[in-house]
Amino acid sequence: MCGVVGIAGKSPVNQMLFDALTMLQHRGQDAAGIVTCHDGRLFLRKDNGMVRDVFHTRHMRALKGNYGIGHVRYPTAGSSSSAEAQPFYVNSPYGITLAHNGNLTNAKEIHDDLFKTDLRHMNTDSDSEVLLNVFAHELQKRGKLNPTADDIFHVVTRVHERCKGGYAVVAMITDHGIVGFRDPNGIRPLILGSRDTVDGKEYILASESVALTALGFKVERDVLPGEAILINNEGQLFTKQCAENPEYRPCIFEYVYFARPDATIDGISVYKARLKMGEKLAQKISREWGEEHDIDVVIPIPDTSRTSALELANFLGVKFREGFMKNRYIGRTFIMPGQQQREKSVRQKLNPVELEFQNKNVLLVDDSIVRGTTCNEIIQMARDSGAKKVFFASAAPMVKYPNVYGIDMPVKSELIASERSVEEIREIIGADRLIFQDLEDLKDAVRTTKVPEVKDFDCSVFDGVYVAGGIDEQYLDNLQKQRSESAKAKKDPYIDVNVDAASVDLTGLQEG
Amino acid sequence: MCGVVGIAGKSPVNQMLFDALTMLQHRGQDAAGIVTCHDGRLFLRKDNGMVRDVFHTRHMRALKGNYGIGHVRYPTAGSSSSAEAQPFYVNSPYGITLAHNGNLTNAKEIHDDLFKTDLRHMNTDSDSEVLLNVFAHELQKRGKLNPTADDIFHVVTRVHERCKGGYAVVAMITDHGIVGFRDPNGIRPLILGSRDTVDGKEYILASESVALTALGFKVERDVLPGEAILINNEGQLFTKQCAENPEYRPCIFEYVYFARPDATIDGISVYKARLKMGEKLAQKISREWGEEHDIDVVIPIPDTSRTSALELANFLGVKFREGFMKNRYIGRTFIMPGQQQREKSVRQKLNPVELEFQNKNVLLVDDSIVRGTTCNEIIQMARDSGAKKVFFASAAPMVKYPNVYGIDMPVKSELIASERSVEEIREIIGADRLIFQDLEDLKDAVRTTKVPEVKDFDCSVFDGVYVAGGIDEQYLDNLQKQRSESAKAKKDPYIDVNVDAASVDLTGLQEG
Amino acid sequence: MCGVVGIAGKSPVNQMLFDALTMLQHRGQDAAGIVTCHDGRLFLRKDNGMVRDVFHTRHMRALKGNYGIGHVRYPTAGSSSSAEAQPFYVNSPYGITLAHNGNLTNAKEIHDDLFKTDLRHMNTDSDSEVLLNVFAHELQKRGKLNPTADDIFHVVTRVHERCKGGYAVVAMITDHGIVGFRDPNGIRPLILGSRDTVDGKEYILASESVALTALGFKVERDVLPGEAILINNEGQLFTKQCAENPEYRPCIFEYVYFARPDATIDGISVYKARLKMGEKLAQKISREWGEEHDIDVVIPIPDTSRTSALELANFLGVKFREGFMKNRYIGRTFIMPGQQQREKSVRQKLNPVELEFQNKNVLLVDDSIVRGTTCNEIIQMARDSGAKKVFFASAAPMVKYPNVYGIDMPVKSELIASERSVEEIREIIGADRLIFQDLEDLKDAVRTTKVPEVKDFDCSVFDGVYVAGGIDEQYLDNLQKQRSESAKAKKDPYIDVNVDAASVDLTGLQEG
Amino acid sequence: MCGVVGIAGKSPVNQMLFDALTMLQHRGQDAAGIVTCHDGRLFLRKDNGMVRDVFHTRHMRALKGNYGIGHVRYPTAGSSSSAEAQPFYVNSPYGITLAHNGNLTNAKEIHDDLFKTDLRHMNTDSDSEVLLNVFAHELQKRGKLNPTADDIFHVVTRVHERCKGGYAVVAMITDHGIVGFRDPNGIRPLILGSRDTVDGKEYILASESVALTALGFKVERDVLPGEAILINNEGQLFTKQCAENPEYRPCIFEYVYFARPDATIDGISVYKARLKMGEKLAQKISREWGEEHDIDVVIPIPDTSRTSALELANFLGVKFREGFMKNRYIGRTFIMPGQQQREKSVRQKLNPVELEFQNKNVLLVDDSIVRGTTCNEIIQMARDSGAKKVFFASAAPMVKYPNVYGIDMPVKSELIASERSVEEIREIIGADRLIFQDLEDLKDAVRTTKVPEVKDFDCSVFDGVYVAGGIDEQYLDNLQKQRSESAKAKKDPYIDVNVDAASVDLTGLQEG
Repeated sequence: MCGVVGIAGKSPVNQMLFDALTMLQHRGQDAAGIVTCHDGRLFLRKDNGMVRDVFHTRHMRALKGNYGIGHVRYPTAGSSSSAEAQPFYVNSPYGITLAHNGNLTNAKEIHDDLFKTDLRHMNTDSDSEVLLNVFAHELQKRGKLNPTADDIFHVVTRVHERCKGGYAVVAMITDHGIVGFRDPNGIRPLILGSRDTVDGKEYILASESVALTALGFKVERDVLPGEAILINNEGQLFTKQCAENPEYRPCIFEYVYFARPDATIDGISVYKARLKMGEKLAQKISREWGEEHDIDVVIPIPDTSRTSALELANFLGVKFREGFMKNRYIGRTFIMPGQQQREKSVRQKLNPVELEFQNKNVLLVDDSIVRGTTCNEIIQMARDSGAKKVFFASAAPMVKYPNVYGIDMPVKSELIASERSVEEIREIIGADRLIFQDLEDLKDAVRTTKVPEVKDFDCSVFDGVYVAGGIDEQYLDNLQKQRSESAKAKKDPYIDVNVDAASVDLTGLQEG
Repeated sequence: MCGVVGIAGKSPVNQMLFDALTMLQHRGQDAAGIVTCHDGRLFLRKDNGMVRDVFHTRHMRALKGNYGIGHVRYPTAGSSSSAEAQPFYVNSPYGITLAHNGNLTNAKEIHDDLFKTDLRHMNTDSDSEVLLNVFAHELQKRGKLNPTADDIFHVVTRVHERCKGGYAVVAMITDHGIVGFRDPNGIRPLILGSRDTVDGKEYILASESVALTALGFKVERDVLPGEAILINNEGQLFTKQCAENPEYRPCIFEYVYFARPDATIDGISVYKARLKMGEKLAQKISREWGEEHDIDVVIPIPDTSRTSALELANFLGVKFREGFMKNRYIGRTFIMPGQQQREKSVRQKLNPVELEFQNKNVLLVDDSIVRGTTCNEIIQMARDSGAKKVFFASAAPMVKYPNVYGIDMPVKSELIASERSVEEIREIIGADRLIFQDLEDLKDAVRTTKVPEVKDFDCSVFDGVYVAGGIDEQYLDNLQKQRSESAKAKKDPYIDVNVDAASVDLTGLQEG
Repeated sequence: MCGVVGIAGKSPVNQMLFDALTMLQHRGQDAAGIVTCHDGRLFLRKDNGMVRDVFHTRHMRALKGNYGIGHVRYPTAGSSSSAEAQPFYVNSPYGITLAHNGNLTNAKEIHDDLFKTDLRHMNTDSDSEVLLNVFAHELQKRGKLNPTADDIFHVVTRVHERCKGGYAVVAMITDHGIVGFRDPNGIRPLILGSRDTVDGKEYILASESVALTALGFKVERDVLPGEAILINNEGQLFTKQCAENPEYRPCIFEYVYFARPDATIDGISVYKARLKMGEKLAQKISREWGEEHDIDVVIPIPDTSRTSALELANFLGVKFREGFMKNRYIGRTFIMPGQQQREKSVRQKLNPVELEFQNKNVLLVDDSIVRGTTCNEIIQMARDSGAKKVFFASAAPMVKYPNVYGIDMPVKSELIASERSVEEIREIIGADRLIFQDLEDLKDAVRTTKVPEVKDFDCSVFDGVYVAGGIDEQYLDNLQKQRSESAKAKKDPYIDVNVDAASVDLTGLQEG
Repeated sequence: MCGVVGIAGKSPVNQMLFDALTMLQHRGQDAAGIVTCHDGRLFLRKDNGMVRDVFHTRHMRALKGNYGIGHVRYPTAGSSSSAEAQPFYVNSPYGITLAHNGNLTNAKEIHDDLFKTDLRHMNTDSDSEVLLNVFAHELQKRGKLNPTADDIFHVVTRVHERCKGGYAVVAMITDHGIVGFRDPNGIRPLILGSRDTVDGKEYILASESVALTALGFKVERDVLPGEAILINNEGQLFTKQCAENPEYRPCIFEYVYFARPDATIDGISVYKARLKMGEKLAQKISREWGEEHDIDVVIPIPDTSRTSALELANFLGVKFREGFMKNRYIGRTFIMPGQQQREKSVRQKLNPVELEFQNKNVLLVDDSIVRGTTCNEIIQMARDSGAKKVFFASAAPMVKYPNVYGIDMPVKSELIASERSVEEIREIIGADRLIFQDLEDLKDAVRTTKVPEVKDFDCSVFDGVYVAGGIDEQYLDNLQKQRSESAKAKKDPYIDVNVDAASVDLTGLQEG
């Protein structure tokens, strides 16, 4: 997962982009980048690291101009080098920079095609570089010295036709404006805001509403599935639906885990959705375990599940307690010559408050169970702290399938629920009882009458239905193979060096 | 406030010290340092910054040895240079390194005295350097090639006689061992743990129990007020009461705000104390505002007050909701030439979840009110989010006096409660109602029958009684003057440069 | 002035390119860059600084591949940002990287044209970016998936047609090979070498022969004016004359000052040329000052003039002595708040050996006199050291015109000789006598019967004849204006920051 | 070898110390350090690296005060960590910092003694730390709050009594002044200068006169063997002979190789001494090879031997030519995974100008022959360049013994001349003829009637007579053993890491 932002402002946007990326930091802590445009010149800074570490005063000063875009990257299999930090750049035509959140599922085919038809060289495995080159190629084909809004919207239509997957994109065409668009299913979020200034209206496009409100922008509306937005160099806004059959299928995992609780995505409050997940789960517990369940206390696994766990406790009429404290400052384990590598245990991330466990039947609530590897340890910690019985509840259904739209989910073989029953999982993780949310309950929790148009979601990790199409068994098999090769490659010290310290950026406008 | 740790291990302690400092990071994020001892050689790394930023692999590799001490520093007025990062070092006698949490109230007098009697040069304003030189001077006076435990305990007695204030100290005497001690009132915490290994018993001394448990150490007991602990080079433990009239007066603010909730200090669970603060405050609200108070929802100001606010809501029978989301990634505001400096507003740190405020009477709960400057903004945010009425409750009493024992509290003139009534404060911060915990209730909340010996506390910020003595009006006036001079000096660009980037360490063993 | 190198090897070329750039370091100490190609991927590292400072182990490890090019940059007016370090990159077509030594005199016109006809965005003022885009545009127009040698040679022909100026270029076409070419007058040098390895023949192209010999390559021959060289991906060498009327007019200033003495450029030994400059100058002195000149000792201004001064002394039959010692470690002057900025005097760069001056008539010999600002100080130092009379000789003629082919020479108004007589200059610099080489003598000194085809030279700084054409009064006036504006801009703190620390690279493949 | 400087100024001395260290950079390029004193506070910056790399603007700004000392370090066996960069510091008494050039031959004994009698901990193997602690201990024993000049001179007397070896020391006693002194044989140089300012007289002490003259100081005189100089805090100068039987025995190797040619040491011009070495060697050549020697050209191995080679050529009546060009920018060889480590050959440091060798009998002149390993390569390069015969001359006698007074000379077994005849050496290096200067000729070349008191020298590397005494066979054997152990230790990766990157400084006042 990643976060994107684009601002067409009336004064320098460097600090605004920086602040927006900070608000989106939870969407990607692996790399960060900003590119701005001033007087036909582009200024870029991007590197691996968190926003606060990537941008120093000297970089910020160099990021001149009233227009710009930014990106925070989540570490994904195979693309963790600083060369693949975004935004990406091509100089032809116009000088275009682009950043995106999501994933193209047919990037490889397009890549080869682009080279053959347009001789375009791509220097990374990043699908963002592919997306940028498709966009650039189609725009070059129009051949205009001054492309109109229609030219650009036509290009987005072509992108929709050629690219499969989920994507929310911000791009900047030098001296022409900022473009934003979402894939025809609206899988990845993108929201539009505006702000009135003495010099006129400023616009912002960002992955989550919190980036807008924290900067004092007003939420205009979510960008629609398939829709494109252009704010040109004069500050005028143009919008157009560029997909043939757009359908609202936002990724439901944004509500489960990924987005900030205070965000509103496609008109739906994430916080409220989570409260309702707690309510729905409470109903299922009552239904399945009976009204006389013997839960003494509900304890969330911090931080995400706190909201649903609180409401779950309310509905069950049971005490809610923060029995686990999260250590916010996790340090790395250094490799010392002659010393054995020690794994950081969950204990260093979570610390139990013993008195909340002693002689109690506790219900631990997590937002979801993916690999399941830490559940075991956490349940053991609860027992070591004196719990009589330890129950476990997942606010999301069983995660059975990989994600191909930009969430860095493990491959199928690593998903604890992919081929197992609830009882089998319960046994593996060592809980006394285990319960998962039902998928329909989850959908009900997220749906709201206020936004009737959002009827369905991309729930592929739960039901294996990939809404953008083109995903079959073979695709998933290949994915699994690539990941395990990539994992092996990481152990090659030669390659490792590149990944860690000095891979090079080809499509980018780097600072020195 | 600061955090300290010392480990007398049976294998290299670099990673353990690093992990312990990470667990204590909340006690000081301004600077960090570790010194280790191997074969008569000391290895040190310290610098401004958070633990994760100060220690890189090359530093960790250089930190050889099975004995060592570490420190994290809270930024305090006038001592923010990297030269004043701890531990400090003197080469005579033996090579001694020392780190401490707290503050000496007679540092200036001792400083002058030490120079005159022992010609000892001190290169900083740090009271830790003073404390180290008192310790070193007294140890030198013993003149032993091989000091015994008794020699060292005698030296701690001398330190207690000469030094006034609150202090929890860890020190390392090269090739002789690790020493830890607390001031005679036990104002600052220090706890002892141990772990059995195949090579024998390892000991740890640290500011909070979480550093012990996270590393797999067993809590032995808190170090007593005035007591000293020595683990010598053979790994033997010696303890002795070194103060004449020790009395338990731990700093109550540790329980209110400073310590981690999952810590146990002087036998008292911080978490449980906070729950009881919520209970006591609920009782006072019922008492004062009547049973038919019109509170619809209790909302904590995250993170510290969450525990007490939850219990407060439980006792009032009102819904508890996390109406404010804390942004964990706060970015700085860069100074751009030609752009106006903008203050980061509270909005960038806290984001309201509007639906929890709309048309409700909300009770906001904070752990304490110090300057009161952000209360205003937070209350306004609540109103902007649709709250009908906004009530405000402080889980601690009115903060009326400065702290002189190591908490970086503002001077009197900056404390909103120092000369004002509750009603006056309510008006300033713009709440519809305002309530403070009573001091006796706070003490009751912290006291527990399990630890009868902890009868009283240092509550100086609330009641102006400075338990270690020697504090009068004039002292506090001087303090206020120094602080405002120091604030002015910060604006001197010449001095500023030193503070920021290149002040030099005199007493320290720095890495290159 | 700059230095370039390209290597088509049979094993990794990173260390070879690094070593070659080190041998060319005297041609540019302002910035350095290397790009390599491996398996269709490009790897680049470039930054401001000397070669030894720009490349660390982690960069070198990332520079994978058997093909690559490199560059060292001389600081020139207006292009000192790291964003303008070379090589430059465009991704379309094929991915092309390019580095060059020289200057295009019609870069501005081409820049505008390229944008209009091909929509190519250029992000810097660098003429190298222009040259690269001309090359790329012409190659794209051929539209071949697999361009042949003829395609590439045709493109070089088009470059010659469109670009005016002096240029020696190395470029790499991803997966196709290394290209090198010189402008039709051969103003800037480029030499071809080869080396046999067990895996086949390796080729190198570089600015000076020393880069070849030091790496164990054999000198094949100089690239001819207008000629292009291609070493394709199979290691095959292709060459073709791509200019219509090529004429040998190498820059004579390479022999006077710029090249290393041990280099051979266009078949002519720089060392030997300098010896002959000394001989010619000795003859003129004898002629003009008479056989009974009263010179007691000949002292060179180190380092360049040592060779000609030695031979001058031999021919005059006078003692040669190194009366000035050059300090090789020049430190900067720091700006301290409250302290006055002090200029580094020549005294910190040169130190007189007093005994060589005492009571002697000394003839100081320099390679040339440009601004003349240091001559004064040096002559004064000679007098302070006890010299009776101080004579001054320039091994080059009077520098009267600016250079537009890549040497960073001051504008006309700053050249001491531009509007003055020898006598006027003598008075300004305070010498007892002053003599300049005659231009014909200089040409005679450089010409050699071994290379009859090099009959004439670009001597524009001496005679104002710009061999590549297109330079008139207005051009030189504009140049002067730009330079003084650029000098002013440097004082703008906003711009200064960019130049110093964080300008951004648009066309480049930067490392992270 | 190292370089030292101390300045007692009337205005900030940071830039002056920096400039002075730059002028002394040739004496040590391994590490650099400066400490200054302002208002009782010390400010220090030291690190591995060259002067220009160690001091950035932020460091310079922090180096406040009108008094300070500085140091450049030559890499010596076993002390290359940044922790051993100088100056060193102890806080007791007064705060003393010290830097020295030379070596104590009884450091180990003093080290142990100091610990036992004074409990002083030393954290490095550096003899400078020992010297500082002797000085500090003796000063502490005086016990004065305000030590007088006599107190300090008494302490220097004690240092002379306890320390054996060669040493030139500058030290700063916080708030008391700058002290400088030389060992009783004056083996290492130290010179005093002064400068009149409007605020009074400023004094400088430095290793070489060039540091004085380049900064505009007037040379007062060399510090005498055994003498001490004090400039107190009021700027008053005190001097005293502190050794019982001082005798002038300056290190003759300073004149042969180490010092800058433009320096004057103990009244003797290094440049003039080198000219006379050339003259003496010419006489020996005429004597031994006959007047009809068949030398066609004299070629120096740059840089040091250029002076003597020129005069040698003059006296022989043979042409002098710079047949070898020195590459001033030597790059390192990177270790690449999977690539073989390649040695940098002499070819990358020296490049022959072929035409000076072709068909000639050349006499190569070097300042001395130590290991002899590069002679072979150089002679081969001369032959490869077409020389008919290659003769070799050393301006110094045969180096047969190690140096124990601070020059990093190899141990005996690595000296080519230690156990071999001239003929044997000639054969090994492959010269047609080989000649060494005679020791008496060398002494004659250095001696001058202007300084009759310098009658003799430390010539230990040539004659094995160690003027400071205490050196026997066993000492030299131990030295050899230590060196080879130290060489082995360097291969231990654990230790290597410390040396390279993060060793820690114990006695120092480091900057953060």
